[in-house]
Amino acid sequence: MSTITSFQNPRFKRVRKLHESRHRRKLRLFLIEGVRPLRLAMENRFRLEEVFVCQGHPLSPAARELLLELDRRGVPLVEVRRGIFRKMLIGQRNEGLLAVVHTPKRSLESMPLPPRPLVAVLQGVEKPGNVGAVFRTADAAGVGAVVLADPRTDLFNPHTIHASLGAVLAMPCAVATSQEVKDYLQQHHLACYAARVDASQEYTQVDWTAPAAVVLGSEAHGLAPLWLQEDVPGVRLPMLGRVDSLNVSVTAAVIFYEALRQRQHGGEQVAGSS
Amino acid sequence: MSTITSFQNPRFKRVRKLHESRHRRKLRLFLIEGVRPLRLAMENRFRLEEVFVCQGHPLSPAARELLLELDRRGVPLVEVRRGIFRKMLIGQRNEGLLAVVHTPKRSLESMPLPPRPLVAVLQGVEKPGNVGAVFRTADAAGVGAVVLADPRTDLFNPHTIHASLGAVLAMPCAVATSQEVKDYLQQHHLACYAARVDASQEYTQVDWTAPAAVVLGSEAHGLAPLWLQEDVPGVRLPMLGRVDSLNVSVTAAVIFYEALRQRQHGGEQVAGSS
Repeated sequence: MSTITSFQNPRFKRVRKLHESRHRRKLRLFLIEGVRPLRLAMENRFRLEEVFVCQGHPLSPAARELLLELDRRGVPLVEVRRGIFRKMLIGQRNEGLLAVVHTPKRSLESMPLPPRPLVAVLQGVEKPGNVGAVFRTADAAGVGAVVLADPRTDLFNPHTIHASLGAVLAMPCAVATSQEVKDYLQQHHLACYAARVDASQEYTQVDWTAPAAVVLGSEAHGLAPLWLQEDVPGVRLPMLGRVDSLNVSVTAAVIFYEALRQRQHGGEQVAGSS
Repeated sequence: MSTITSFQNPRFKRVRKLHESRHRRKLRLFLIEGVRPLRLAMENRFRLEEVFVCQGHPLSPAARELLLELDRRGVPLVEVRRGIFRKMLIGQRNEGLLAVVHTPKRSLESMPLPPRPLVAVLQGVEKPGNVGAVFRTADAAGVGAVVLADPRTDLFNPHTIHASLGAVLAMPCAVATSQEVKDYLQQHHLACYAARVDASQEYTQVDWTAPAAVVLGSEAHGLAPLWLQEDVPGVRLPMLGRVDSLNVSVTAAVIFYEALRQRQHGGEQVAGSS
């Protein structure tokens, strides 16, 4: 295993570049920190270009096991002096491992869909933390896929990976324009609902047991006009308080779990049909 | 209106101290930034000691109206040079106003409770952002009160106020020890449920139409032993994915809205009783 001992090392410099989204986009590479997301990446067949190991860092048993497996698979392992390794990390927490990973294409065409899916569409969402939080909940609630429409952040942003606990690496997902997403949903016969505070229909009145998609916008910008047209029924969460909006990841969670509730209980409990 | 023109001004220095929770605790004062939370504080009868106004900052109509009202109520208004004012703020956004506010007592005894309440108990939660997010959702979902048990952050932390969109200033709430909270819930005949990933009962199986409380712990520390005893039934959200935990504000949101759904639909749709 070679060792990086200088801040002048080109590999170190490249990692530092990959802290910025424009370089990630240009180089079609991104970074994964920590054991758990790295394992998810390996299991989900991401192409790992190289993995950096922090010199002298006490590795957890899970980290050691992972390293052995990476080595078996022929992934280059590079040791890095601790002070230099720390400067490679974006997050606060050092688990001793950092990977440079090839950004895979995440297109609608190649996105696997389970039968009777619920698809979450995040339109124009800008905060990686929010995107990550939605992935984390989507994964837990059994959502079939998450689509970023017109994203204002990159899918494999380190903060997204972190906030998703790695779910963004494990779930079916895609990036596309709103028009492409709308066409896709139509072609796949998914009933499409837009989450909007001014909708007349409450989210509990929808039959979520059918194949469906829910479109969620950013808090700052709302939804693009395409999702506000008449062919997309709106749904809203009741809001009884003084505050007039909910965080997008909260709105998403409540709808995802209502869909799951209906699906688990056969859908006989939809308010609109009872 | 007097004007602060120096970083040596003792009022400036006090505001800077109030950025730290230990000084907020000692002085029993806290800070409110922005127009909306400030209005909520006024409407909810917080005692405003003084309000700083950023010199030359273009105030919104809502801000100007608020200032007039504060002036009518005799709240001292102090102008501050822009460069100094900026250093008084904790948040990124400058709306031109900052208030020093007396920390009110928030005890269980004085906490108003609506009839048939749902009470949210946050036990040992450490991140102000999470506490604020729970308040924001609780307000929207019609939760009766939010109680912090053994908090690891102060109730009126600026980040909590910000993340709650001010709801922490408007909602019934209290701070107490877990034992005090448990006694209180018993005295008030609230059925108490602990959110835990290892519970056998799903959250949809609970009858949330009765007066109830749900206790949520921190992601890092889990719940205190008091809430893991047999007299507190556990409830869990189904988790179908690779990720094995949910953010506390997401868990809270899903339970709050399930309770609201049951309450709005008369409770006939509880899974366990159908």
